[in-house]
Amino acid sequence: MSIKHLIRTVPNYPKPSIQFRDITTLLADPQGFQQVINDFFTRYKDQKIDKIVGIEARGFIIGAALAYKLGVGFIPVRKLGKLPAETIGHDYVLEYGSDRVEIHSDAIAQGERILLVDDLIATGGTAEAAAMLIQKLGGEVVECAFVIDLPDLGGVKRLQEFGLLSFALCVFEGE
Amino acid sequence: MSIKHLIRTVPNYPKPSIQFRDITTLLADPQGFQQVINDFFTRYKDQKIDKIVGIEARGFIIGAALAYKLGVGFIPVRKLGKLPAETIGHDYVLEYGSDRVEIHSDAIAQGERILLVDDLIATGGTAEAAAMLIQKLGGEVVECAFVIDLPDLGGVKRLQEFGLLSFALCVFEGE
Repeated sequence: MSIKHLIRTVPNYPKPSIQFRDITTLLADPQGFQQVINDFFTRYKDQKIDKIVGIEARGFIIGAALAYKLGVGFIPVRKLGKLPAETIGHDYVLEYGSDRVEIHSDAIAQGERILLVDDLIATGGTAEAAAMLIQKLGGEVVECAFVIDLPDLGGVKRLQEFGLLSFALCVFEGE
Repeated sequence: MSIKHLIRTVPNYPKPSIQFRDITTLLADPQGFQQVINDFFTRYKDQKIDKIVGIEARGFIIGAALAYKLGVGFIPVRKLGKLPAETIGHDYVLEYGSDRVEIHSDAIAQGERILLVDDLIATGGTAEAAAMLIQKLGGEVVECAFVIDLPDLGGVKRLQEFGLLSFALCVFEGE
């Protein structure tokens, strides 16, 4: 089964001329949601992943379900001021403005193998910032996993230039 | 195993005199995270749940992993303006200010049995608002499930007065 047809396209969101790829219709579909997590599980089950880092907020949905399936811990990367204990953070420019992501300073131990998860990669700014935080804490980013890749926006290439591997379950290109 | 000892208390967050119960340490622990989801699964596996509604953002983590385990769809309730398609919303007063939650108008079908999930219940304002949205779309709220209940803040009682059942895995009272 292809999961791509379960993803809804919302025109002109969050601003005119943007075709927003909406995974809520995929998540609402029991078979679709199972397949997303099972496909990732098949790819990563033998990769000796120690922890999954999920990016707020949609990355929490995919990352947490996958962490449960893999039997590993889940670490949230959040927006500014949302984590209660001591954090490190990184400011970055993203598609629709600028932002800051943070992670708890004690969330990752030296040498841990980390899978970074988000729903979608566009320009790759958020994922790159999250990967920098993981590396700063001594973690190794095994791969960055996304449900959707928008290659026209160059995120995967950007992560590659930063030395990071990426994987996406489906691609929306020139559409 | 008790999950309670895996929850970190952060004093004076988000404001002085608040003892913040931080589940990130629980989520980071593989056995702890498994037990949270498995305990909920045991309770709800025979309840004919059609969908799980998770409240942004920590409710996404618990709700999505449980939806995967139960084999049902996951529906996000989000803050103002975060959902791309047509929504209905509800304004409410919460512990540290006021807020609005929204749900996609087509997310729930008439008569569906819904489990509402969040990490924590304090005053119950957010959960009550989310439950109202579910009911407005024709869904039946089977129960509201939380990792943590803070009974001093009266949330479970408030939901009860609204006709809603609640369940929490652990309680922090008078601490």
